[in-house]
Amino acid sequence: MPRDGTITRNKIMDIARQMVLNVGLTGTSVDKVIVEAGVTKGTFFYHFKTKHDLAAALIERYADQDQHHFHDYMAKAEQLARDPLQQLLIFIGLFIEMTEQLEDPFPGCLYAAYCYQSGAISKDVMSRIEEMMHFWRDQLSHKLKAVNQLYTPQLPVTHTQVADHLLTTFEGAFVLSKVMNEPKLASEQLIQCRNYLELLYRADG
Amino acid sequence: MPRDGTITRNKIMDIARQMVLNVGLTGTSVDKVIVEAGVTKGTFFYHFKTKHDLAAALIERYADQDQHHFHDYMAKAEQLARDPLQQLLIFIGLFIEMTEQLEDPFPGCLYAAYCYQSGAISKDVMSRIEEMMHFWRDQLSHKLKAVNQLYTPQLPVTHTQVADHLLTTFEGAFVLSKVMNEPKLASEQLIQCRNYLELLYRADG
Repeated sequence: MPRDGTITRNKIMDIARQMVLNVGLTGTSVDKVIVEAGVTKGTFFYHFKTKHDLAAALIERYADQDQHHFHDYMAKAEQLARDPLQQLLIFIGLFIEMTEQLEDPFPGCLYAAYCYQSGAISKDVMSRIEEMMHFWRDQLSHKLKAVNQLYTPQLPVTHTQVADHLLTTFEGAFVLSKVMNEPKLASEQLIQCRNYLELLYRADG
Repeated sequence: MPRDGTITRNKIMDIARQMVLNVGLTGTSVDKVIVEAGVTKGTFFYHFKTKHDLAAALIERYADQDQHHFHDYMAKAEQLARDPLQQLLIFIGLFIEMTEQLEDPFPGCLYAAYCYQSGAISKDVMSRIEEMMHFWRDQLSHKLKAVNQLYTPQLPVTHTQVADHLLTTFEGAFVLSKVMNEPKLASEQLIQCRNYLELLYRADG
């Protein structure tokens, strides 16, 4: 695809993502996206055959960015510390740093937006979201397994439950932050999740 | 309103709530609700002037139940223990017991469903949701203030941040539970939140 095509495609997707997070996918019409993006119908349909193609492309791009983000921060954390618990705490710390800089509430997670309209979304797309949640769970569980070889948790937990608590915190904090219009809420809640890991494994010694 | 009217009104609302949590409010049409509820147009419009009246009524009923639930469980916890930390742990424990019994994922929180379509919902309704989140925060902060007079947190936190972590856990766990189709995820995540409070205040002594 020529460079101009990619720019236009991304522009359409940016407008659509904003609209989906604001009025939901069922409230987003191709006509409105076309008007807001300032493109012709021909251009739109050159890039996306249907609204559902667009919905799938939005999740594909979001999942790619999410996965890239995960690997990027984990690589940084692994460079900054040898100890797996410290790596996890740094990993969360990098997300805290990022979300601390938000001046408006994070507009929301596409996974959550779609899950609250799953009846209007294809099974393939919902499976992709489920796959991404399993990606987070599996990657973090793998790291927590290494943590458990060095530290004994203070209370009975499984890797999966602790791993899920980070994603739970992200998803929940995005909802609260949107409703209460408090941009700092996301970083504050990630701090609670990091506190939990520190206390659970008594990282303080 | 006669008894039959209340039954019909609740039936319409049950159908609508299910639809809103499945396809979003923008995907829910009055016509579809009428067909699914098996009522006439006249009956529907006798109870609700517009779809937005229905949307507001759904939140009002949900908020009432939520608030009632909160007070009911807190009253039980306060009867079962004198210590404010134990009261909080029992309070969360009652929600753990309740969510442990789920055989299907919790269909979702109306606050979250609405917040992901807030652009299509009246400001009054969104303010009501914000008010409910402040209710949770204020009530729990009040209890945490009493906890802080007896226990010193192991890490620097504010009442608000710790209070918000319970609501964050509920909201996040409902999203993960829906996406991953795991009914037990909600109770497991509430256990992590209770673990956090136990460790933060070293409830074990």
